[in-house]
Amino acid sequence: MSAIPKPVMRLIEELSRLPGVGPKTASRLTYFLLRSPAEQVVSLAEAIRQVKERTVRCSICFNIADTSPCSICSDPNRDPTQICVVEEPLDVLALERTRQYHGLYHVLEGAISPVEGIGPGELRIRELLDRLRNTTVHEVVLATNPNLEGEATAMYIAQQISPLGIRVTRLARGLPVGADLEYADAVTLAQALEGRREV
Amino acid sequence: MSAIPKPVMRLIEELSRLPGVGPKTASRLTYFLLRSPAEQVVSLAEAIRQVKERTVRCSICFNIADTSPCSICSDPNRDPTQICVVEEPLDVLALERTRQYHGLYHVLEGAISPVEGIGPGELRIRELLDRLRNTTVHEVVLATNPNLEGEATAMYIAQQISPLGIRVTRLARGLPVGADLEYADAVTLAQALEGRREV
Repeated sequence: MSAIPKPVMRLIEELSRLPGVGPKTASRLTYFLLRSPAEQVVSLAEAIRQVKERTVRCSICFNIADTSPCSICSDPNRDPTQICVVEEPLDVLALERTRQYHGLYHVLEGAISPVEGIGPGELRIRELLDRLRNTTVHEVVLATNPNLEGEATAMYIAQQISPLGIRVTRLARGLPVGADLEYADAVTLAQALEGRREV
Repeated sequence: MSAIPKPVMRLIEELSRLPGVGPKTASRLTYFLLRSPAEQVVSLAEAIRQVKERTVRCSICFNIADTSPCSICSDPNRDPTQICVVEEPLDVLALERTRQYHGLYHVLEGAISPVEGIGPGELRIRELLDRLRNTTVHEVVLATNPNLEGEATAMYIAQQISPLGIRVTRLARGLPVGADLEYADAVTLAQALEGRREV
């Protein structure tokens, strides 16, 4: 289509690679940027460029951070005897938002997924075991996603930790707040029943 | 939240300004970029920066283009006696995709919307009338959106053109292909009835 200028075409293609962005959304975003003030567009381009240049992976917990070790790993007020294992940096944010967890984290950078060819070796599991051997940790909270990959990853890690004699826990399963019992899937409901507690 | 590095925070904020991108989508996209290869991220940043730097508004039809006049306005194979009036550059693409229209275009850069404070003066209507006065045009096809603003804009332009004695047409209204009669809204169905044709 000769009607589309090359730089516009190129941006549509680049944006289409983002997750959840199809060609239609990509062209909508592109034409939105074309109508936006130049400063806003340059500012977005700069922010994208800097997000990789100015951040590092924490050498201890592998979270994305300004510095290494990250602000959580180097915070003396956090409980170093608890390590919460998550798949992605976004999971750390979700847990921090609860304000209920005060221990440290360990970001795996993914989950075991034979379909995608991701085995335990691709994840930061060896680094986790090294941390557990070299520091005094009393509890490892497995907070991988409650899906097939997350479960498999949690099982694998639990097995690896068991010889070290450290307590391993998993986030509770049950009905989410605001859910409708009527529409809950059978597995979730079964887990909510199994995990029922005294009132 | 101290857990988020500043460059990450900034990108999430910048992305949240895009239409249809909320804070959740913005953080998903940000962490996707953090996991992507550096070249891909730099390439996206470059594409965003260049999309404004390397494109111009065509001085005749106001479409986004590599050059001014644009490739459509300067194409000797296009019919210069037809001008199709659209709201946005994306509408030009949609019409080009049909391969049924071979005339020229005129991009208004919006639609009349009292709610958003956009009057006829904010649009490229004066420039359209100048084009109609200075060139031989036999038909103006009004292809603004079939909503309140688009209709108001079409009506206003039709009024302005009427003294010039040029034929003014509007895109047909009716049932879209693949639609279900049962679920069609009353207005669309009424227009489909009104515009019915001999088989």
